Amino acid sequence: MPEAFPLKTRTTLRVRFHECDPLQIVWHGNYLKYFEEGREDFGRKHGISYHDAQSKGIAMPIVRSVCEHKLPLKYGDIFEVESTYIDSGAAKILFQYKIFKDEKLVCTGETMQVFLNDKGEMLLSIPPFFLDWKQKTGLL
Amino acid sequence: MPEAFPLKTRTTLRVRFHECDPLQIVWHGNYLKYFEEGREDFGRKHGISYHDAQSKGIAMPIVRSVCEHKLPLKYGDIFEVESTYIDSGAAKILFQYKIFKDEKLVCTGETMQVFLNDKGEMLLSIPPFFLDWKQKTGLL
Amino acid sequence: MPEAFPLKTRTTLRVRFHECDPLQIVWHGNYLKYFEEGREDFGRKHGISYHDAQSKGIAMPIVRSVCEHKLPLKYGDIFEVESTYIDSGAAKILFQYKIFKDEKLVCTGETMQVFLNDKGEMLLSIPPFFLDWKQKTGLL
Amino acid sequence: MPEAFPLKTRTTLRVRFHECDPLQIVWHGNYLKYFEEGREDFGRKHGISYHDAQSKGIAMPIVRSVCEHKLPLKYGDIFEVESTYIDSGAAKILFQYKIFKDEKLVCTGETMQVFLNDKGEMLLSIPPFFLDWKQKTGLL
Repeated sequence: MPEAFPLKTRTTLRVRFHECDPLQIVWHGNYLKYFEEGREDFGRKHGISYHDAQSKGIAMPIVRSVCEHKLPLKYGDIFEVESTYIDSGAAKILFQYKIFKDEKLVCTGETMQVFLNDKGEMLLSIPPFFLDWKQKTGLL
Repeated sequence: MPEAFPLKTRTTLRVRFHECDPLQIVWHGNYLKYFEEGREDFGRKHGISYHDAQSKGIAMPIVRSVCEHKLPLKYGDIFEVESTYIDSGAAKILFQYKIFKDEKLVCTGETMQVFLNDKGEMLLSIPPFFLDWKQKTGLL
Repeated sequence: MPEAFPLKTRTTLRVRFHECDPLQIVWHGNYLKYFEEGREDFGRKHGISYHDAQSKGIAMPIVRSVCEHKLPLKYGDIFEVESTYIDSGAAKILFQYKIFKDEKLVCTGETMQVFLNDKGEMLLSIPPFFLDWKQKTGLL
Repeated sequence: MPEAFPLKTRTTLRVRFHECDPLQIVWHGNYLKYFEEGREDFGRKHGISYHDAQSKGIAMPIVRSVCEHKLPLKYGDIFEVESTYIDSGAAKILFQYKIFKDEKLVCTGETMQVFLNDKGEMLLSIPPFFLDWKQKTGLL
């Protein structure tokens, strides 16, 4: 049975001391680490990973990231990263993120990844290992 | 005499080992550190700083950041961050960034900051210390 | 009933992509983040925190840290940080750390913290909030 | 003519905003980044680098690091890292660091690196590329 769409994962994290800045809040650039933790957790739960790509000689670097902050996070806060996979026909991987604390929206964001072969060239069509994954999850 | 518009600064940096990831390139989130270094350098050269704000009890957190990657940077690369102040009438600080290596465009980005008073409330009008700065630079 | 001595905590963590360097291993400086996560987890489990100190106007900065590496950690590895509180009569907080992966010793380390008052002066005797904690845990 | 011994380099740096923590000082783990910047600068000035090793299939991971703090550094502080190469007959690279601000000692530290071949095995004798470097600098 295919999974419910859109594919999304919620990951619970806690703000660490070294992630906070002199304004006593999480330094804005550290949200990209939270997005990465959410994306990796999504990968573990939905059966797709950096290692799958790597074993095929393919890298999936981030080529675009956006982050918008509504509320600050502070040291010790427990929060959730909701990572949603946005499907498209293109040779790209798009995720949208929402960070919640006590069910209040703290931050939204998105990342776009492309596929590079082992010469560093961008693939114009979706590589087989990723098509396989899309089929397994019912996206194709 | 007013400065040439738009106000911009070029800052030369070098990629450090710990900024690179297993793909042998700068980890995408570290570009926000480069933007910060560019923005702080702009502040020093154009006479505006975090300390000016702080002494008035005002914080200027980043509420939005965007980063788009065209080419990778690798360990040891020397590159330039061009930080351009985008003026607006609103109570916001907008910067656009371009990163160049050997005059090739590596990355573009932008950040938006707002003004918060010491209760953490967002200011709806531009605070006096920042109007002063705009006047000094000829923006007003 | 007092707790078993020495006081120690085991914290399970996973290596994140952005913590790894071009050698495909965790960058050595990131182990201090793991020690911090272990120390904070110890604090939560044993009822002592940065906030307790902060509410008394006391800071507990790290004044010494040591890290020795036996084996590398790689992206995705799951490991445990064992944080052991080393009691002493001095106005210092000493922790020793051992990091294990599959019960093999990966790394050892230690940190020393001191107490500063709100003028940034080092306290020569243990502050009351910390004596209270020592009493509660049976160390005094 | 051989260089003056011990071989050392002074590198001027400035504290960046994102390196500071809620105590308004540089987070202790970031000093390992400063040591790395000092060590890399030493390498550039004395003609030895990560790339030299890498081209021989050799990695030089850090296996031990120590950091002791005397005074804090704050946002915007300009400081100097003095990196001193400590020669020994063993297959190890030892550096000692001193960080100064306004000629006051802020921090001391050291790092030890070993040589690994491309199978990840530790070399028990000094590899040729490093012996060459020692000869060039007059250490041998």
